Amino acid sequence: MARFAFTVEFDGRPFMGWQRQAHGPSVQQAMEDAIFSVTGERVAVHAAGRTDAGVHGLGMRAHADIAKDMTPFRLMEALNARLRPAPVAILACETVPDDWHARFSCTGRSYVYRIVNRRAPLTWESGLAWRVIQPLDAEAMQRAAQLLVGRHDFTTFRSVHCQAESPVKTLDRLDVERAGDRLAIHAEARSFLHHQVRSMVGCLVMVGMGRWSVGDLEAARDAKDRAALGLNAPPDGLYFVSAHYPNA
Amino acid sequence: MARFAFTVEFDGRPFMGWQRQAHGPSVQQAMEDAIFSVTGERVAVHAAGRTDAGVHGLGMRAHADIAKDMTPFRLMEALNARLRPAPVAILACETVPDDWHARFSCTGRSYVYRIVNRRAPLTWESGLAWRVIQPLDAEAMQRAAQLLVGRHDFTTFRSVHCQAESPVKTLDRLDVERAGDRLAIHAEARSFLHHQVRSMVGCLVMVGMGRWSVGDLEAARDAKDRAALGLNAPPDGLYFVSAHYPNA
Repeated sequence: MARFAFTVEFDGRPFMGWQRQAHGPSVQQAMEDAIFSVTGERVAVHAAGRTDAGVHGLGMRAHADIAKDMTPFRLMEALNARLRPAPVAILACETVPDDWHARFSCTGRSYVYRIVNRRAPLTWESGLAWRVIQPLDAEAMQRAAQLLVGRHDFTTFRSVHCQAESPVKTLDRLDVERAGDRLAIHAEARSFLHHQVRSMVGCLVMVGMGRWSVGDLEAARDAKDRAALGLNAPPDGLYFVSAHYPNA
Repeated sequence: MARFAFTVEFDGRPFMGWQRQAHGPSVQQAMEDAIFSVTGERVAVHAAGRTDAGVHGLGMRAHADIAKDMTPFRLMEALNARLRPAPVAILACETVPDDWHARFSCTGRSYVYRIVNRRAPLTWESGLAWRVIQPLDAEAMQRAAQLLVGRHDFTTFRSVHCQAESPVKTLDRLDVERAGDRLAIHAEARSFLHHQVRSMVGCLVMVGMGRWSVGDLEAARDAKDRAALGLNAPPDGLYFVSAHYPNA
């Protein structure tokens, strides 16, 4: 028995999210079915984060315990062959100590949120970015974003379904970058509340459109009330970028 | 009657190419059907370039003559509404003089070719880039690319179906850029032969994989023989970026 850690890329469009669901396909199920197909073993795959329906993964980390004797390279190749045609790919695979846990050992997570700021509908990026028609002031968004960095009560930016014990989190980075009509919003923290990134992005877009001042965002933060939320961004533009672990 | 010029983005995956075909959907047909739906007029849409099946457009230029009295903005909005769900979007629309022709007035065309250089299959980029498994030496590719810049007989890099009168073209730019595991190859010329960009990219990849030396590429060029072609890159990674016009 060995514990294998995976780096996983996936297109979230056809999935109900990372976590196995009774009512539709999930990335977890695709991974577990592929492992069963390769090893004959029914195992649980644990991930660094449980992304929502329609959210994508660039470098999700996950692990599973597998008895079959295989090198990480052969396992990765076999899984990638069996995952087809699901849009899930194992980018890297390694063996890790038995006490390494993709979720509980994780000390940092980073996301990027992609916006296309234009009138025209999206073509190949449909479902891969949020199209915002109103011109966005990225500099105002960047200023507002800094009000969310640090240790705060993020109740305003938290789904009512969030199961975290505390709404207090420390946000390490929230940066808004613009290149032409594309915006990328980078978020980093030890962990996030459910819908936190999408809720923060939605409120930054309120600022970018000029419907909120930077002060309005601060007031929404300090309200500590979900009702103060300006806008929840759709899942389309959200990508889980990477998970960080001590000594790695 | 007014002549309208369009800037068009499209996802080439579902199309047989730009040009209207009897046996499958085309971008031209999608545009012409949308114009008919908006105006009741059956018109021909002319484009700066006739892309192959599976090739994408970031900023294709096209024009059509329309009798119905509409502002360019209203026409663009109406076309974008009618184009749904086809992955074709009008990014810009303007009226132009009657002697302006998207194809014949065009004095420069630029393409980009996208490669993902990794073992793992593509997920959301499937059909949007060429996955090359063998590690590519982008610096060698860039050196080799410079041997194709300038005025040459590009017979080696020309489809047997090419209808151009002469195989002699002047290539203004061919640059290979690497960022992580992604390569972008930028090509600019007044005009290109059929399959020229894909054929040049395929041969640069031969150099990048180490299967060809830079000298082998030069020999292939000087052979002026289609049989000397190393590899024709798939359409997946090719994007028509922009068309250039005098005084514009």
